[in-house]
Amino acid sequence: MALIVQKYGGTSVAGAERIKNVARRIAAAKDKGDRVVVVVSAMGDTTDELIELAYQVTEQPSGRELDVLLSTGEIVSSTLLAMALRDVGYEAISLSGAQAGIRTDSAYSRARILKVESQRVVKELEKGKIVIVAGFQGITGEMDITTLGRGGSDTTAVALAASLGAEVCQIYTDVDGVHTADPRLIPEARRLDEIGYEEMLELATYGAKVVHPRAVELGELFSIPIQVASSFSQNPGTLIHGGVSMEVRNKVRGIAYDLDVAKITVVGVPDQPGIAASIFQPLAKAGISIDTIVQNASINKITDLTFTVAKSDLAGAMRVVKPIAKSIRARECASDAKLGKISIIGTGMQNTPGFAARMFDTLSQHNINIQLITTSEIRITCIIDEARVKDAVRALHRAFEVEMEE
Amino acid sequence: MALIVQKYGGTSVAGAERIKNVARRIAAAKDKGDRVVVVVSAMGDTTDELIELAYQVTEQPSGRELDVLLSTGEIVSSTLLAMALRDVGYEAISLSGAQAGIRTDSAYSRARILKVESQRVVKELEKGKIVIVAGFQGITGEMDITTLGRGGSDTTAVALAASLGAEVCQIYTDVDGVHTADPRLIPEARRLDEIGYEEMLELATYGAKVVHPRAVELGELFSIPIQVASSFSQNPGTLIHGGVSMEVRNKVRGIAYDLDVAKITVVGVPDQPGIAASIFQPLAKAGISIDTIVQNASINKITDLTFTVAKSDLAGAMRVVKPIAKSIRARECASDAKLGKISIIGTGMQNTPGFAARMFDTLSQHNINIQLITTSEIRITCIIDEARVKDAVRALHRAFEVEMEE
Repeated sequence: MALIVQKYGGTSVAGAERIKNVARRIAAAKDKGDRVVVVVSAMGDTTDELIELAYQVTEQPSGRELDVLLSTGEIVSSTLLAMALRDVGYEAISLSGAQAGIRTDSAYSRARILKVESQRVVKELEKGKIVIVAGFQGITGEMDITTLGRGGSDTTAVALAASLGAEVCQIYTDVDGVHTADPRLIPEARRLDEIGYEEMLELATYGAKVVHPRAVELGELFSIPIQVASSFSQNPGTLIHGGVSMEVRNKVRGIAYDLDVAKITVVGVPDQPGIAASIFQPLAKAGISIDTIVQNASINKITDLTFTVAKSDLAGAMRVVKPIAKSIRARECASDAKLGKISIIGTGMQNTPGFAARMFDTLSQHNINIQLITTSEIRITCIIDEARVKDAVRALHRAFEVEMEE
Repeated sequence: MALIVQKYGGTSVAGAERIKNVARRIAAAKDKGDRVVVVVSAMGDTTDELIELAYQVTEQPSGRELDVLLSTGEIVSSTLLAMALRDVGYEAISLSGAQAGIRTDSAYSRARILKVESQRVVKELEKGKIVIVAGFQGITGEMDITTLGRGGSDTTAVALAASLGAEVCQIYTDVDGVHTADPRLIPEARRLDEIGYEEMLELATYGAKVVHPRAVELGELFSIPIQVASSFSQNPGTLIHGGVSMEVRNKVRGIAYDLDVAKITVVGVPDQPGIAASIFQPLAKAGISIDTIVQNASINKITDLTFTVAKSDLAGAMRVVKPIAKSIRARECASDAKLGKISIIGTGMQNTPGFAARMFDTLSQHNINIQLITTSEIRITCIIDEARVKDAVRALHRAFEVEMEE
């Protein structure tokens, strides 16, 4: 008798009918003889509505109070789901994050899970019950309620799966799995049957829309296979796990892109210790996240330093960087706000030559200019003109045949 | 430095603006130098909306799950109120019923408070904070959430006041106090400055619309004065307490009425032991609440037994009583569905003759026929024709001059 953890997102439980539908799916899993723990998000737009209510009352909601407020969203959906299961004849019980033993630090609105004290969950499972846990929330050592921030319910599900030694953590959402590229952009994008944890993480923004990276990292850390599928169909979806078979490793597994890229280049920087810190520390202090950083090989102790930020941060970053550039006697400080980023991803790339060359060649054939290149062991990323990103994704998708059956 | 407990009802916190208004009132109380604990109901129609949601999912919501679901309503309003107080510069913290130590039995949807473990509340008060407690809810010994049923938030407030040794429990609502009669019926009804606990309880349905009888009983038991006032005005309202002054005791304090009265008379009942039980036990088993019971003096060991029920229970009660009447050889079984009940109330009546006579005389002068009479130490009740109830209330109000200044 296996133990499985299922997680249903907000869209899957938006309204009584959808909750009943989810209850039938859970019942089917229980009928197979498995013990079932379910993590559930707040219904539809509940969380946004509660946030709006808080801001109607105050411009600066207290972190503690806001977390208690938001935690009610998942409690509502978990109780309704437990009722729906009982309605179709299954013993079910809802537990808040606190009751399920999700212990966190006290960083309100972005708490990290410290441990899972799952005795209550185990006790209810042993009574034969289906246990419904309110996602996205936990409790501190001082018994104050916290929320986990973005990807919170995914993280709750994987953490519970790890704590309970579950066979698999199934994440049900409104898409039918992980695709070779964002299917809204590339209609021919193909659903992957399986993908490695690291590959999933490298899918970046697109991947995060499917399963939050925190949850994927946690799954990797505790070797919990994560199955991503649609709650609106019976397709098996995609299995994210560590043991992707040999044959499919030697492939480009997916193509990611990001249209929110702006570039700043500090030209003619004296290449000496401390220069990078003198630029990036003030940016960090100003709360500006840096994405890619590229420093060219220096010629005569003079180099160019290029980095990218979100478009909305460009003006702020320029205000910080310009005076610094002047003080370190850089020649100039240039920016470009109309960029995008494309990446090819696959663990097979790390020991196999030729992927980078084929990527660059494909872009060149389509007359797409590459402005920056960065790589990780399983990813090659190019920064290109924003207007050409979609062409580039399509071209690479064809070139690496990611849409074809493996 | 006194400690006061304030309670705000659902109408008082329906919407962000009203919550801000309540925050200003609490701030004013705090400014007087008192320590302040606030109990809050769910915003507006939240509880009804949550119940509707539950019934959309299942025809028979589990008691445990429904209570957890409903408890979120008061958690939402308590966090918003804490935020609003912090917004105007006051340290405030919201606590759930569980966190505030409201320990109950496990009778879901109608739990009774067993004790209040108020350490956490005391700790927060000692830090100088205003403590906002979610009303209407508690927690069992097994750490499951319960709700207290009707009048729950009033009861939470008085229980906390008793546990903390508060000077007064202030119940803020949408009416400006307790009146000599329901002001919607009797425009000349006057607000009472003070009223005794028992008198308040005898005001029955009308009184319960102002403060729930459970809370009044608890206030009497622990000698907690309860001040009832409007959250929309600065009027002092009515003080419900035990020490009503001598001068005002010798008066009719209020007039109550109830239009939901149906009468059943079992005519010609053999007057022997066990007969009453043989009628009322089956009614209790059928879940039918009996209000007034009157048995006439028996003549030749034959008596008439009359009792009243809610109009909606009349048909069900007749189905139960008819076969019993036959089996005990009663002559017949009659009913009247078009009745009402009026009462005059005042602790002063118990040692003073003449109140009953004046009541009957007043009704007679207005040609109102009395069908049944029952009395308690501080109340005289007549059952009369439904169509004449309002006339009767007005006539008695004038006769006993309850609208005049004392």
